[in-house]
Amino acid sequence: MIESKQRHVVVLGAGFGGLTFCQTFRHPAARITVVDRTNHHLFQPLLYQVAACGLSAPEIAQPIRGILSHRTDITVLFNRVVSFDLVKQQVQLEKGKLDYDYLVLAMGGQTGYFGHPEWERFAPGLKTLDDALRIRSKILLAFEQAENENNPAERDRLLTTVVVGGGPTGVELAGAFAELARTVLNRDFRRIDPTKARILLIEGSPLVLSHLPPDLSASAQRQLEGLGVQIRNNIHVKDIRAGEVELANGEIICAGNIIWAAGVSATPLTRKLGVKLDKAGRVKANPDLSLPGHPEVFAIGDMALVLQESGQPVPGVSPAAMQMGRHVAKIIEREINSHDQPLSRAAFKYRDKGTMATIGRSAAVAWLGRFKCSGFPAWLAWLFIHLIFLIGFRNRLAVLFQWTWSYFSFNRSARIITYAPPDSSETK
Amino acid sequence: MIESKQRHVVVLGAGFGGLTFCQTFRHPAARITVVDRTNHHLFQPLLYQVAACGLSAPEIAQPIRGILSHRTDITVLFNRVVSFDLVKQQVQLEKGKLDYDYLVLAMGGQTGYFGHPEWERFAPGLKTLDDALRIRSKILLAFEQAENENNPAERDRLLTTVVVGGGPTGVELAGAFAELARTVLNRDFRRIDPTKARILLIEGSPLVLSHLPPDLSASAQRQLEGLGVQIRNNIHVKDIRAGEVELANGEIICAGNIIWAAGVSATPLTRKLGVKLDKAGRVKANPDLSLPGHPEVFAIGDMALVLQESGQPVPGVSPAAMQMGRHVAKIIEREINSHDQPLSRAAFKYRDKGTMATIGRSAAVAWLGRFKCSGFPAWLAWLFIHLIFLIGFRNRLAVLFQWTWSYFSFNRSARIITYAPPDSSETK
Repeated sequence: MIESKQRHVVVLGAGFGGLTFCQTFRHPAARITVVDRTNHHLFQPLLYQVAACGLSAPEIAQPIRGILSHRTDITVLFNRVVSFDLVKQQVQLEKGKLDYDYLVLAMGGQTGYFGHPEWERFAPGLKTLDDALRIRSKILLAFEQAENENNPAERDRLLTTVVVGGGPTGVELAGAFAELARTVLNRDFRRIDPTKARILLIEGSPLVLSHLPPDLSASAQRQLEGLGVQIRNNIHVKDIRAGEVELANGEIICAGNIIWAAGVSATPLTRKLGVKLDKAGRVKANPDLSLPGHPEVFAIGDMALVLQESGQPVPGVSPAAMQMGRHVAKIIEREINSHDQPLSRAAFKYRDKGTMATIGRSAAVAWLGRFKCSGFPAWLAWLFIHLIFLIGFRNRLAVLFQWTWSYFSFNRSARIITYAPPDSSETK
Repeated sequence: MIESKQRHVVVLGAGFGGLTFCQTFRHPAARITVVDRTNHHLFQPLLYQVAACGLSAPEIAQPIRGILSHRTDITVLFNRVVSFDLVKQQVQLEKGKLDYDYLVLAMGGQTGYFGHPEWERFAPGLKTLDDALRIRSKILLAFEQAENENNPAERDRLLTTVVVGGGPTGVELAGAFAELARTVLNRDFRRIDPTKARILLIEGSPLVLSHLPPDLSASAQRQLEGLGVQIRNNIHVKDIRAGEVELANGEIICAGNIIWAAGVSATPLTRKLGVKLDKAGRVKANPDLSLPGHPEVFAIGDMALVLQESGQPVPGVSPAAMQMGRHVAKIIEREINSHDQPLSRAAFKYRDKGTMATIGRSAAVAWLGRFKCSGFPAWLAWLFIHLIFLIGFRNRLAVLFQWTWSYFSFNRSARIITYAPPDSSETK
């Protein structure tokens, strides 16, 4: 093989897409720099467990450096992207800049408020570890404040939690909060009865988990209601203010906690790329995942809009992001090996491995191709699949240990209020 | 036994002293209300492990409600003490007030800056879980910033950590930071060499751990230096400013992190009691631990100054606090049983079970009565004793698991930067 010049591959984001690219791509004639605004890879599917006191933060987060420390061809930078110059092939960072031969955009998404950014301070979303810790503290704080509260109306408000959005995150959060109140906190208070805590789930469509077959959605809805979650279907949120949610029908719900699980949009940085975006801010990528007019730039994961043959977009789930990471790794490897001779590139094909959602202790729904199930078997499948995908062996063991323990003891040990968030005042 | 009126015992603080009182005191004619400003009991001896990424916060903190949930005669309030009225026998809380028949003051201490409160923002102390998480983030952040830094002088500053105070906390922190840099982070960076990170320990006396016999202190000092910690003995700090420490000899040390482990003072709330305090703000308690002139009020743990027969004060360590909690529980029980007839009360006697400090991986010193040891055996003893005293069975297992894992893997999985502290700007 002819010695070819050293290529520099810059990867922005160490989520499922970016990390999988780094773990797949390796070439003697290339080095990688991966940039992330946090120092850890987050196992987002379990983020709701941190918010619901089931797991501690480090159990679902692994230091990126730790995961990649054996790869001396990879440099990890804890830094923020400021802007791009796709012509100069340069990325401007908060501190310094990077020139690239190949650029992989894998910065993921953020909570989207459908054009109501002002709702964020009253109804935080769940995308980062800090979000989860903030929600955990706010939920626990509300129970503590209720125990100190003499005014019944205010007590009821504090004991009411509204989750907006009946997708997987909303369903998992609502279920986990219901369990927290009914099976964990139930013995802990003297003046209030945590089992009287109201958890409301607001969903615009007729059933929760509308991306699943109707029978599974119906089963999920039944299992949630079995846990005591009050579900409002077919209704949208009109406004969110400090401590209250106004529904489309004018009804106002006073709540000590409001959590937004209704929308995801791509990182606003996509606007600085100067390429076509969809209304969620996602980059309209070519079939090979490259950017129109920029074969050296790729967009993967939640920040990319990629259409399947069906015309449907590839869903924003971690398996899709990982598959995209592998796809791009192969393309770049082939090109370097061919000494940059233009090659026809394969189009990305999403292989749907199925989808599942957990609702609570031994309650879940799973849809794996032909195979559908719900209840305990689905929950076991969910547990198993999430454990084997947890990055980092030690975490897997610790999490399994944690779950087994809380499953049999009805105990959630991460019930710790730390670092009262700046917006904690809003609980009042 | 004649039916006697219901007594209300108010316990302020659920640290080692307050919690032990609650677990020891139980009387059919009495109920307890325990007030704490956090929702968790903290196993402070391991707090430095959280700051040094060895353990996650929930592993050393147990929800107070969880620990006491089986005690229906105990009400736990997450609330703050505002003031006292010892005459009316009333405690004013941030929300509401409490009348008491007996009051147990167990609010512990806080970091003391010897009359230099302005140093706190530049040199945080280590008393609470939030302190530990803040320090953890700042330490990790400093390495990350160094990796992004091109100016060598600034890089060196970021890689310098100063620990002020060579007591147990300072020694444990310095040792843990040295190990973090040399055995954990060493493989993780590409532009900086973490093993070049400087950890300085500033101690006013000729040896660290001056409360131990000289040979043990000397051994501790050797073990620390073996880990690469640079110890400055016989020198005090003159001033602390943003990112720099000035020593008594005028020398200025630029540091990315400065941690204060030099002093502890009682909670400032003791000033509102209107009783005699020592210069550390501790209550000068009677031999039976009651307050002069107030036989129904007791002070225990770090906020009490209690003299031993030797004339030496009882040390501010958790075993002492726990012994005081049991002592007061016995006194109150006897008095209720005697239907409030005045009884002569026993004086508190501190039984010294020995003292130990860990320096790092299989490095420690222990002084248990006649028995002295250092190095690996001391470390094992330390590990064992701390594990059996960890409150909460599940934690004990999880922590043992964690330690075993990091011991063999040289891996510290809690290397997670969460919730950038407001003062993180000061690292610049």
